Amino acid sequence: MTYAYYNGEFGKFSDIKIPLTDRTVFFGDGIYDAAIGKSGKIYLFEEHMDRLCDNAERAAIPLGRQRSEIEAVLSELAGKSAADCFFLYFQLSAYADERRHAPRDKELSNFLALVKPIQKPDIQKELNLISYPERRHGFCNIKTVNLLGSVFAAEAAHAAECDEAVFIDGVNITECSHSNISIISSGTLITHPADSRILSGIMRRHLLLTAKRHGIPVIERPFSLSELLAADDVLISSTSRLISRAKTLDGFEISGGGRALGDMLMGDMFKDFENFC
Amino acid sequence: MTYAYYNGEFGKFSDIKIPLTDRTVFFGDGIYDAAIGKSGKIYLFEEHMDRLCDNAERAAIPLGRQRSEIEAVLSELAGKSAADCFFLYFQLSAYADERRHAPRDKELSNFLALVKPIQKPDIQKELNLISYPERRHGFCNIKTVNLLGSVFAAEAAHAAECDEAVFIDGVNITECSHSNISIISSGTLITHPADSRILSGIMRRHLLLTAKRHGIPVIERPFSLSELLAADDVLISSTSRLISRAKTLDGFEISGGGRALGDMLMGDMFKDFENFC
Repeated sequence: MTYAYYNGEFGKFSDIKIPLTDRTVFFGDGIYDAAIGKSGKIYLFEEHMDRLCDNAERAAIPLGRQRSEIEAVLSELAGKSAADCFFLYFQLSAYADERRHAPRDKELSNFLALVKPIQKPDIQKELNLISYPERRHGFCNIKTVNLLGSVFAAEAAHAAECDEAVFIDGVNITECSHSNISIISSGTLITHPADSRILSGIMRRHLLLTAKRHGIPVIERPFSLSELLAADDVLISSTSRLISRAKTLDGFEISGGGRALGDMLMGDMFKDFENFC
Repeated sequence: MTYAYYNGEFGKFSDIKIPLTDRTVFFGDGIYDAAIGKSGKIYLFEEHMDRLCDNAERAAIPLGRQRSEIEAVLSELAGKSAADCFFLYFQLSAYADERRHAPRDKELSNFLALVKPIQKPDIQKELNLISYPERRHGFCNIKTVNLLGSVFAAEAAHAAECDEAVFIDGVNITECSHSNISIISSGTLITHPADSRILSGIMRRHLLLTAKRHGIPVIERPFSLSELLAADDVLISSTSRLISRAKTLDGFEISGGGRALGDMLMGDMFKDFENFC
């Protein structure tokens, strides 16, 4: 069962309702974050909370409550999850007393959160990808709920019976509809720079840190579709899957010249989750 | 008072609540339209309904009910408005039984509508504009609630005590945060083509039709900030304001070399609203 929280009230997903003063309804005017956890503990909680607060500031949405109050709600929700592994979603949205573009309320905001049981991430599962034209807005570095560009791409992946859609901005790849993508080529990890075209994923950051710890060179630069297809390995990182390997793109097998480095990185990242509590 | 409707229920704006199965909450996954009217009658109702249905199709959101049911709800809401002039907002959003990027429900959608009293559009009021960098997504031709790019711009205009923000895409102007913009230069009406960079406004279309009826040449092409500042006249068209004249941009007076054509077009468009019922 999915359990939810909204502005002071706990309840089932199907019982929680939100008012029209929540500007997600009219403008998608909110930011969010998501984490996973197990046994009631939230994995990398502080990093996710830091990012939530950063995103609120970037989108100029007031926290509207103490950070510690948000943390207490999320810990309580995590504790309510009877499941071994859970997915925790939390969202802060702007408030206004009527439908208007501007101004928002300067003090108030709405806080929504969900928790649901999930299977433990399966890093053995290899992903099939489709390419999709990049048409998203220019502030993908802000984790907003203006996600229609990602929804269109995810719907296309679903229709193609694939796992993820990769955005192609001209010839270069930015990221996926709800994950980051990196390639390993000639012993080097290559990934799009964390500029306004992608979300700076927490698992992306841990992937880069893990590579550096192993002495694997890391280059943050855009790479092309052809580079992806010819890569030795293609890694997809996200909160809910941790780290996965891509198998095909648009039906083409990814070259996959060598998996030793990828296996090492994936193994380390999975072990970190296994051992965090 | 703002009166509202949601999935079968009428009520005050402050009483209507929406469930988490409405995908505006998590993705801004909805499309909308808005009209004005008076004495219980909706101005250009059929054009607005046509556009709502077109947008639903473009965003692949099912109507989920007959078009005639939507029209009946909107007519009832319009009839409830005691005000002489009213603003009518209506929105169709995707449905899913949990928070996930894909898939949406293929059959169900949510329908929300609002009506509120407004002042009669005042075409004498001249607008002060600011410029704002274009960072919106690449499907601005779809009237979605993924409006955060417009919210950021409208907030900046509000902070500058101005009326509207003009998006600059490099050197060229696309449109404003919630209206279209056209210039009159050497007797010609120039406006951005109705491609994926702008919303094809209904008042924009009526402006072009009015110009053509008067034998004024119309060119649909992007124009620059400098062209705007040097223009003989700058016209802002939108549903709620009908048609207005811009006075300044970023504090600079717009050249305003000649207002005769603009006055004629504005007068005709206002008369059309005055006489529609």
